[in-house]
Amino acid sequence: MKRIYMDHAATTPVDKEVVDAMLPYFTNFYGNASSLHSFGEEAHYALDESRHNVADVLNAEREEIIFTGGGTESDNIAIKGVAFENKDKRNTKGPHIITSAIEHPAVLEPCKHLEKQGFKVKYVSVDKYGMVKIDELEQSISKDTFLISIMYANNEIGTIEPIEEIGRIASENNIVFHTDAVQAVGKLPIDINKLNVDLLSLSAHKIYGPKGVGALFIKKDVRIVPLVHGGGHERGLRSSTENIPGIVGFGKACELAQKRMVKDTQCIKSLRDRLVREALGIEESYLNGHPEKRLVNNAHFYFAAIEGESLILRLSDKGIAASTGSACSSKKLQPSHVLLAIGLKPEHAHGSLRLSLGRENTIEDIIYVADVLPEVVKYLRKMSPLWKG
Amino acid sequence: MKRIYMDHAATTPVDKEVVDAMLPYFTNFYGNASSLHSFGEEAHYALDESRHNVADVLNAEREEIIFTGGGTESDNIAIKGVAFENKDKRNTKGPHIITSAIEHPAVLEPCKHLEKQGFKVKYVSVDKYGMVKIDELEQSISKDTFLISIMYANNEIGTIEPIEEIGRIASENNIVFHTDAVQAVGKLPIDINKLNVDLLSLSAHKIYGPKGVGALFIKKDVRIVPLVHGGGHERGLRSSTENIPGIVGFGKACELAQKRMVKDTQCIKSLRDRLVREALGIEESYLNGHPEKRLVNNAHFYFAAIEGESLILRLSDKGIAASTGSACSSKKLQPSHVLLAIGLKPEHAHGSLRLSLGRENTIEDIIYVADVLPEVVKYLRKMSPLWKG
Repeated sequence: MKRIYMDHAATTPVDKEVVDAMLPYFTNFYGNASSLHSFGEEAHYALDESRHNVADVLNAEREEIIFTGGGTESDNIAIKGVAFENKDKRNTKGPHIITSAIEHPAVLEPCKHLEKQGFKVKYVSVDKYGMVKIDELEQSISKDTFLISIMYANNEIGTIEPIEEIGRIASENNIVFHTDAVQAVGKLPIDINKLNVDLLSLSAHKIYGPKGVGALFIKKDVRIVPLVHGGGHERGLRSSTENIPGIVGFGKACELAQKRMVKDTQCIKSLRDRLVREALGIEESYLNGHPEKRLVNNAHFYFAAIEGESLILRLSDKGIAASTGSACSSKKLQPSHVLLAIGLKPEHAHGSLRLSLGRENTIEDIIYVADVLPEVVKYLRKMSPLWKG
Repeated sequence: MKRIYMDHAATTPVDKEVVDAMLPYFTNFYGNASSLHSFGEEAHYALDESRHNVADVLNAEREEIIFTGGGTESDNIAIKGVAFENKDKRNTKGPHIITSAIEHPAVLEPCKHLEKQGFKVKYVSVDKYGMVKIDELEQSISKDTFLISIMYANNEIGTIEPIEEIGRIASENNIVFHTDAVQAVGKLPIDINKLNVDLLSLSAHKIYGPKGVGALFIKKDVRIVPLVHGGGHERGLRSSTENIPGIVGFGKACELAQKRMVKDTQCIKSLRDRLVREALGIEESYLNGHPEKRLVNNAHFYFAAIEGESLILRLSDKGIAASTGSACSSKKLQPSHVLLAIGLKPEHAHGSLRLSLGRENTIEDIIYVADVLPEVVKYLRKMSPLWKG
């Protein structure tokens, strides 16, 4: 059966060029980057080069990048790292953090954990498109606020947040600003020098790189307490024998992302737009997220009287890989916190579908989905007690 | 030039079979294990199978294994996880931890970090062979002791600790027992059911698996606070999109380790014994670590009047990859804490050489090293102001 992968926001296939770049580091150049001998030197050189490639995608300095085990770890290092630094140093700042109601669990859960430890967290609300309410954010700032963490682009509905503006506000108030850019990197041009961002999380497996590798941009002079202690790798901020093949793959993925971004995004956007037009042709279907300020590869719908999980499974039977929202919460029963935050009723939030496109999708894929989706929706509605017909 | 790798305690090449097992998961079965569609199912199945393989190497249950980003992270999760659980729950236990003076930094540094937060840590000393002093350990136990962390085998000198005995003591005193078994797994048969071990750290890249993957055995009913919060992966104890290719590689490496352990250890031990005999033929050379209770692949020497770093670099020039001690500390200037703990003077600790053998080493490698090493030692001594001649 034909298989069409449209869940690139969950994870991507690893690019063939990325695999080729990684392979020699498994079996030939397999040294520990901390070793003094020639095997170690090779590994250390590769580590350096890859750090350069990752920094380049943000127009950052090599010294501002540390490698981690993934986006979730990067978010945790950033948020808890700044929180504990602030707590330990007893700055003039109190224990107040500002984030948004639609962050990824990798940001929300560390915040909830910090709340249990006496930190106070404000979850700023969003409008019906998922845009963070800037007024509310500004009004939430107090002399106690030491950290703002707002995602670059939302993983479920694709809405792109006003990071430049939030960075300006954070900077004016002398507040550290972190952004989870896991979904944005490789899809949007990011110039860290034009943004007042202090910390930025990246992940390799969202940009055709390997799973198990992430990075954190840490602006010079921003201090954090490490989460993991040990041999002192990554400037003491993330001890662990460096995952050289994974890091080399991440570097190559960043290089490819930069080289291909303009062409890829044009192509993917035109496919996505066609897909949205086709899907909105279905009766009582609605697009979630911002109509323009959204990731080029994201299409997120609500279909009345449909149960999202049944839709995903039925589409999977037809060879189409899609999701209701984030993969992380796909096996949980609660409706998406993102969809509730943009004002959907719980029963509507359950009827959602995310199709996230990637490099390898073709117009034939779109035509196939446009063909199958209305049938599947019709089939499920026939069985739905909520459907009018 | 011939290149001989004898630094397997730092890291190993990835076995060809392991790479072959991983490859399909980069480009074909690349789904997110949390996704509901068929790509997700494939990933989830692989995750399950690999967990089984890793559990098997310890004779543990699948449900007792969580995957991590490496041995250092496993140690940190275990130690901090139990510490914060104990602190939060305010058990009958106070804030006392017992560990040894010769642990890896992945254990020592978390302990030092906890000391800054009010925990009290006892670093039990070792004898001249690096064996933990059991009497001292027992005498250190108080009603406040909630955790003992002692490594299974030392990463520098290869000494194997009396884990069964320490486990019995911990159990009798109702204390959680963690062991860093990163160096022991795959080299020693480990049956978790015969040991009173509550937590055990593993790493893939020490057993011909990929870097960037580790695991933690957590006995049923042992509770820990997670270090990283997010999507709730690995029973909520290590949130992060699972590194499926890496985990598959780890599973395969465990399978191979089990299958080959008897044959590999016999072969490696005989090569190592020959190497030790040859090296001890050099004037004023000494073996560090226990003469019998040591890892079969470990040979660790002290050569009088030699600077270890020069020795490593000179050997590297001759194509031999070796180390002074752990890779983690190989670029630091301090003498090894392990060598100081077994009673070497700082100037002697600087003259150390670790040769750690692996599967691919041959008798020709040993003959070559036995040929080159005396020459290099002689050459360096000629230039040494400390050498008598």
